[in-house]
Amino acid sequence: MDMTRIDTLFRQRRSGHTLPQDLYIGADTFDFDMAAIYGESWLAVGMECELPKTGSYISLMIGKWPVIIVRDKRGDIRAFHNSCRHRGSLICQPGSGTAPKLVCPYHRWTYDLDGSLFAATRMPTDFDKSLHGLKPVAMENIAGALFICLSETPPPIDDFREKLTAYAAPHNYKDLKLAHQNVLVEYANWKLVMENARECYHCPTGHPELATSFPVGMSKHFDTADQTKALTFAAQLDELGIPHDPVEGPWWQVARFALNEGTNSISMDGQHLSKKLLYAGNDGDIGSMRFAVDPHSFSHSTADHVFLFSAVPVSSTETHAYNKWYVHKDAVEGIDYHLPSMAELWDVTNLQDKQLAENNHRGVNSRGYTPGPYSQEAEMLAQRFVDWYCDKARAYIDAHVD
Amino acid sequence: MDMTRIDTLFRQRRSGHTLPQDLYIGADTFDFDMAAIYGESWLAVGMECELPKTGSYISLMIGKWPVIIVRDKRGDIRAFHNSCRHRGSLICQPGSGTAPKLVCPYHRWTYDLDGSLFAATRMPTDFDKSLHGLKPVAMENIAGALFICLSETPPPIDDFREKLTAYAAPHNYKDLKLAHQNVLVEYANWKLVMENARECYHCPTGHPELATSFPVGMSKHFDTADQTKALTFAAQLDELGIPHDPVEGPWWQVARFALNEGTNSISMDGQHLSKKLLYAGNDGDIGSMRFAVDPHSFSHSTADHVFLFSAVPVSSTETHAYNKWYVHKDAVEGIDYHLPSMAELWDVTNLQDKQLAENNHRGVNSRGYTPGPYSQEAEMLAQRFVDWYCDKARAYIDAHVD
Amino acid sequence: MDMTRIDTLFRQRRSGHTLPQDLYIGADTFDFDMAAIYGESWLAVGMECELPKTGSYISLMIGKWPVIIVRDKRGDIRAFHNSCRHRGSLICQPGSGTAPKLVCPYHRWTYDLDGSLFAATRMPTDFDKSLHGLKPVAMENIAGALFICLSETPPPIDDFREKLTAYAAPHNYKDLKLAHQNVLVEYANWKLVMENARECYHCPTGHPELATSFPVGMSKHFDTADQTKALTFAAQLDELGIPHDPVEGPWWQVARFALNEGTNSISMDGQHLSKKLLYAGNDGDIGSMRFAVDPHSFSHSTADHVFLFSAVPVSSTETHAYNKWYVHKDAVEGIDYHLPSMAELWDVTNLQDKQLAENNHRGVNSRGYTPGPYSQEAEMLAQRFVDWYCDKARAYIDAHVD
Repeated sequence: MDMTRIDTLFRQRRSGHTLPQDLYIGADTFDFDMAAIYGESWLAVGMECELPKTGSYISLMIGKWPVIIVRDKRGDIRAFHNSCRHRGSLICQPGSGTAPKLVCPYHRWTYDLDGSLFAATRMPTDFDKSLHGLKPVAMENIAGALFICLSETPPPIDDFREKLTAYAAPHNYKDLKLAHQNVLVEYANWKLVMENARECYHCPTGHPELATSFPVGMSKHFDTADQTKALTFAAQLDELGIPHDPVEGPWWQVARFALNEGTNSISMDGQHLSKKLLYAGNDGDIGSMRFAVDPHSFSHSTADHVFLFSAVPVSSTETHAYNKWYVHKDAVEGIDYHLPSMAELWDVTNLQDKQLAENNHRGVNSRGYTPGPYSQEAEMLAQRFVDWYCDKARAYIDAHVD
Repeated sequence: MDMTRIDTLFRQRRSGHTLPQDLYIGADTFDFDMAAIYGESWLAVGMECELPKTGSYISLMIGKWPVIIVRDKRGDIRAFHNSCRHRGSLICQPGSGTAPKLVCPYHRWTYDLDGSLFAATRMPTDFDKSLHGLKPVAMENIAGALFICLSETPPPIDDFREKLTAYAAPHNYKDLKLAHQNVLVEYANWKLVMENARECYHCPTGHPELATSFPVGMSKHFDTADQTKALTFAAQLDELGIPHDPVEGPWWQVARFALNEGTNSISMDGQHLSKKLLYAGNDGDIGSMRFAVDPHSFSHSTADHVFLFSAVPVSSTETHAYNKWYVHKDAVEGIDYHLPSMAELWDVTNLQDKQLAENNHRGVNSRGYTPGPYSQEAEMLAQRFVDWYCDKARAYIDAHVD
Repeated sequence: MDMTRIDTLFRQRRSGHTLPQDLYIGADTFDFDMAAIYGESWLAVGMECELPKTGSYISLMIGKWPVIIVRDKRGDIRAFHNSCRHRGSLICQPGSGTAPKLVCPYHRWTYDLDGSLFAATRMPTDFDKSLHGLKPVAMENIAGALFICLSETPPPIDDFREKLTAYAAPHNYKDLKLAHQNVLVEYANWKLVMENARECYHCPTGHPELATSFPVGMSKHFDTADQTKALTFAAQLDELGIPHDPVEGPWWQVARFALNEGTNSISMDGQHLSKKLLYAGNDGDIGSMRFAVDPHSFSHSTADHVFLFSAVPVSSTETHAYNKWYVHKDAVEGIDYHLPSMAELWDVTNLQDKQLAENNHRGVNSRGYTPGPYSQEAEMLAQRFVDWYCDKARAYIDAHVD
């Protein structure tokens, strides 16, 4: 990784504008992004409900980095690098399951659920098992939402924890269940995927289905043009004691905003996707509580369901978009909700976004590409994302250049 | 791009011999080739007839570089980088069509056919549209044949314009229509594809079908062994006032040569592919007017049709060969010409060349590869191509090394 | 190739432990491995019987390096770089065949079976053919087993020749025929494939089928726990005058070991795969004579057949495993042996190993990977392989760094 070249690229960045070309398409800048951004940030990976009992685990990939999340015997959620301390083999295959202990399939080295090495055959008598436990990954369980950080010095998370705990309370994340999940492969740089996910300038023409419920004409921090509805909505929430004003930190945002008139959920028809509500008050309409975590995710919680989107790159030109839908744990499939319609709105929206991001990537390859201006009114959050990216990169460069 | 290493590779080049190995197979030399060669050369892209009216456009790729060619309201042909000045998105999908204005599908930024930015919503009042027009690409329309150059300082083209105008006159390029086109993917370095396209040493055994009409035993600049026919042919052309002597500049060649006895077109049986002739005199036999443009193309114009071949790399090991066949604009498909037979000769020839070039590439990977000698008699034009490549590279290196 | 970086990686190697991460997954270390390891080592490529007569040839790939092995008019086996001295084209397509001369398909340059250039048309009269023969590759024919080395200074091979000649004698390699061959593509670094091939710590649970005949619980140099059988076996071999003690050199090992009680061949049921024995004495049980050559191969010779495994990488993440099965030249397919069962044991075993190696590779990508300890008792040969690799690399680095 040529840090001098990367430093130069970032110094070429023009404020208020998209990034220099090689930060989007350079194969060498990808390794930098993984180390400086994905390796140093908190990442949303799911909900506690996905690990219902002792030994429940999720095995997932952060790009090419394998991670295991597991519920230990005390009921705590822990995260580890998914790599045996013997020869480095993957211990759990990507997916989820339950296991009394974590056993490497290669030579049967066996780990306790707290990551400590329990058994390794044919090793010498003076072999110190205590030095060969699974390497831990930082884990935060915030009101039932799970975040990991692969850095040994994770960024401060106290403010985010406090705010998300308060804003997510009505949705009772501890009582969720995972109803559906899928992955979409996008052949575009991850930053183009995320810039797209951070603005709705393209929504009115790009996402007709989303526009049913979503205030696609919003500006800045989900400010809608329809101030009458916004004020009424704010008064209702205040009455219910539900926080809603946009709050943010360096790498996160949390807000609650009103959905379009006549809608109460983000779905094809704007109506609840699950009859078993997470919050039954106010006629089941508390708008959408959106939280977003840089570099890679956003989530919308309505009265009936929670949607979580996260994007992870595997190369400079390929990004995997993970999507998860949660409903109340007591909701019954086929009665309270229907799987075919559960994913419909975000599937169609994600496919539209995939096409836009891939088309964007192809154009950014142009020999004539130069950084262009963000709309300060319509793309403020995209610009905020890129600013955060440049600041985060700057900190890493300064720490790693002599 | 490590210019010192690339400089060293070119300094290892042995005159009269093929290139050093890493100039063919090095992944890093590919970026150099794109910048120094494809980015700095005139490239043949098609014919004016492909853009019949105001708003007609062709969207094409020079490797990963997207370009739009469009006919504006004044009837002029213009070329632009196909990348929106907002976020860089591709404006026109690869292919062709007609549009009153060029509208980016992402956020609906709208450009006039002259490239100027016509409309961009939600931008501030002080936003200067005049600074955000599409970036122009140099365009030359020579007697109806279109050439673009992505450099801001294109090479001089006056001599080529003058010669091609004179030599192409009998074929009346302005009265053509595109009858057929296709693309062949070759897994070989683009220079091996082009060296192959610049010599006929391999033709007698490699291209039995082409040998029907083509003087495959020719040496140097299309000199045939059969001097009797050559002299008769020259006298006929002189009589008709049609220029034929080989002429050339640093990056181009133009010549007219006789086809084999009893043939009047380059086709499977050596006979016209289209009954509606471009030039009806001399019993429809004015041989072939060949023009070739370095780095990437050659074209043959006979009395009945025009064939244009151009090769564009997408990586050090993959080259796309674009093929276009043109006939008289009034020729009627199914009556004057038949599509299945139109492409047959060059399709079979291109597939043979693909196999030869790919086989060449595999062998050049050999640990025992060393540059070998060109036949001065049979491969003069291949050597000329490689010499031009090295000279062009040298100029770029000298301009970019301290 | 950044030799300083590579040097640093090797200096980070911790004795008794697996390699630093980037020596397994770094794209740049692959070029080093090809140059320093595969380009400087003796490689097992097959048996003399595969070239039965004058003009018989095998065309094979060492990664991307094409090589021809041919039997010349004197009956000697020779090896050449498979790259025409004219434009570098591949002369023989991968595979095998018979040819009176070696003719390049491109421009018909024609070579004698001793590699000398016989004919090249259209070259000038002063062209010196004697300077344009095929480039030779070092070749050793040891008792019928063929080894090549692409280096101009191959490692000493006298000790190996002497030992292999003695140990292989009972199997009479000159009387073999190739019964079957195939290739398995493994998406893992070649060193992980080879470490796996060099230890049986994973065999008891990983290879139930192999465990039928193979002493999978062995330690160090094929020492079995069952000393009774080992001693009886040694006495029998001594009686027959067949050498068996483990012997080794820097890059090779040769030994003969007893198979499991009641078995006489390495097969699904532990019984002979071919009725036409290579060695008929001792009731057809002389255990397995194993030879292994670093970096890439091992072979097992039993009384009835010979199996040869060799692994060649094509990138840092892809390795091709070549497998060949030989039987007595007079064995008749369908009568003495059956093809469907011939390959069964190693096919199932190789597929298990592929899964283990690929899983290992995925885990080594972990951000938490650190080199782990080899079991001194169960993985001695894997550690020996890695030590050899580091020593070999060190010699190359020292010879190529100022």
